[in-house]
Amino acid sequence: MDEFALIDIFFKALTHNRDDVLMGIGDDAACLRVPKGMDLVVSCDTLVSSVHFLPTWDAYDIARKAVLVNVSDMAAMGATPAWLTLALTLPESDNEWLTRFSNGLNNALQEFNLALVGGDTTRGPLSITLTIHGFVPHGKAIRRGGAKPNDIIFVSGELGAAAQAVALLTASDIPEDDRNALMHTLLNPTPRIDLTTVLQRYASSAIDISDGLSADLTHVCKASHVGACLMLNSIPVHKLVKKYQESNATYFAMSGGDDYELCFTVSPLEVDAFMADIKKANLMCYPIGVIEEECGLRIKDIQNEVSPLTVRGYKHF
Amino acid sequence: MDEFALIDIFFKALTHNRDDVLMGIGDDAACLRVPKGMDLVVSCDTLVSSVHFLPTWDAYDIARKAVLVNVSDMAAMGATPAWLTLALTLPESDNEWLTRFSNGLNNALQEFNLALVGGDTTRGPLSITLTIHGFVPHGKAIRRGGAKPNDIIFVSGELGAAAQAVALLTASDIPEDDRNALMHTLLNPTPRIDLTTVLQRYASSAIDISDGLSADLTHVCKASHVGACLMLNSIPVHKLVKKYQESNATYFAMSGGDDYELCFTVSPLEVDAFMADIKKANLMCYPIGVIEEECGLRIKDIQNEVSPLTVRGYKHF
Repeated sequence: MDEFALIDIFFKALTHNRDDVLMGIGDDAACLRVPKGMDLVVSCDTLVSSVHFLPTWDAYDIARKAVLVNVSDMAAMGATPAWLTLALTLPESDNEWLTRFSNGLNNALQEFNLALVGGDTTRGPLSITLTIHGFVPHGKAIRRGGAKPNDIIFVSGELGAAAQAVALLTASDIPEDDRNALMHTLLNPTPRIDLTTVLQRYASSAIDISDGLSADLTHVCKASHVGACLMLNSIPVHKLVKKYQESNATYFAMSGGDDYELCFTVSPLEVDAFMADIKKANLMCYPIGVIEEECGLRIKDIQNEVSPLTVRGYKHF
Repeated sequence: MDEFALIDIFFKALTHNRDDVLMGIGDDAACLRVPKGMDLVVSCDTLVSSVHFLPTWDAYDIARKAVLVNVSDMAAMGATPAWLTLALTLPESDNEWLTRFSNGLNNALQEFNLALVGGDTTRGPLSITLTIHGFVPHGKAIRRGGAKPNDIIFVSGELGAAAQAVALLTASDIPEDDRNALMHTLLNPTPRIDLTTVLQRYASSAIDISDGLSADLTHVCKASHVGACLMLNSIPVHKLVKKYQESNATYFAMSGGDDYELCFTVSPLEVDAFMADIKKANLMCYPIGVIEEECGLRIKDIQNEVSPLTVRGYKHF
């Protein structure tokens, strides 16, 4: 099969109807129109076989996860996702794999009202690069660099389950229910697009937790020229992390990547209004600490003793 | 070195100053502003080691070529390139390679006034995916599907040298001058951005010749529901293709990929004005045939005999 037949069969139908797509798949480039009053927000993420996923995984899950982690970057900017391009490198044209991949991609595109607008398919070792495009009202993108001393630090959900799934990938002696629940969090992270409106209104900074809370919060602190102090017993930890990591659970959860919850900061003057809006929207967020002038990360334990927090996150190289 | 240090050292400085880049490298996503009255044009291309380039090539050349082939897609749409994201997958963090790569990238970015606005670096088999973004005035993107019967078909330059370079990659018995000239065309294709203004005005369809003239013109014909007849002795063939392919030179040049010249069509009513404008701008374009109602490609030889043209192009799978 040549590249063009492959695109026609598996991908062309995924240019979903959106008024802002003037020309989707099938030309030298896509032609798109950013709505008036909006800035364009662009991010890309690559998933490499045996690094970010196992070649034995269902291609449906691989495609979905590739979309979800990109949508998460939009959520971290307070942006609404719109368009994707796909660069797919494949060792061979495998119809069964491509069908599963294309179905998983379509499923995720529909879930987030995204259009696939272009891409490139090449022969080589399996890897997937998605470039995602979204919109945010002029000047409303949430930066990493906006955190200020005394801002309250929040996370949007329980942490650590994806890292726990990776840690137990080859374990044979865990209950099937636990394995399924952990693998579900690894394969199906939930990008927190549901928080976009309220974060646009309240967040002074935001990041998605892809490398681990301590590593990602460090990015926020460095970009904002501030530090942070976390409260050990406020960090929300997934129950299966507590079960398998026992006394080390919170530290494990803070250093585990692939969670795709959001970590963000809110001015202390606005925390009450923020919490009220969150409650009104039937959402949950966890205050976990406070931004401080002094650089670096610290943690306050149950005895209220403060000590430096060693940053452990996913190392890419 | 972790991913963030690598980005800081080798890539952060490549977010060149552009007023339309509100936030470049260093956040969850870039934040960009499309100028008023403009549509956004987006394309991506992947270069895989040992497929699109040899791992022995200078990383400076690899980076430049990755940019050039992406800029060529903008030229084919009549668009002006503006921003790039880079997804770089590397087997290891090799400072010397990264320095050369980053320098080559910087060189090409400056040449086309492009800003690198984001990306992802991952560990894995060497491959480079660039997603390029450009602008075209509302509704002025040049499509593949706009060719009409009697339109004149043009190419923007001589064909076949890159394919000839590939054919002679391992040959030991060719003069050094020839080898250098051929390798230069392979490593340094010239995206025809210089034609953008005049093509926006006159072209009814356009495509860049990345898969070979016959394959790419077939895309235009299929998208436009027309056919084409080429004149064998009008096809501009690179002199070194003539030298090494002899009597087969024109057919070789028509099926060779990687040229990155443009193939486009102009209404017969506008050809004179088009040629006058081309001449005024000190450019050269070659009329090579005519669009016809009957589907398929045909070629008229020196004896004016017409025969079907067999399409041979680069096969990706």
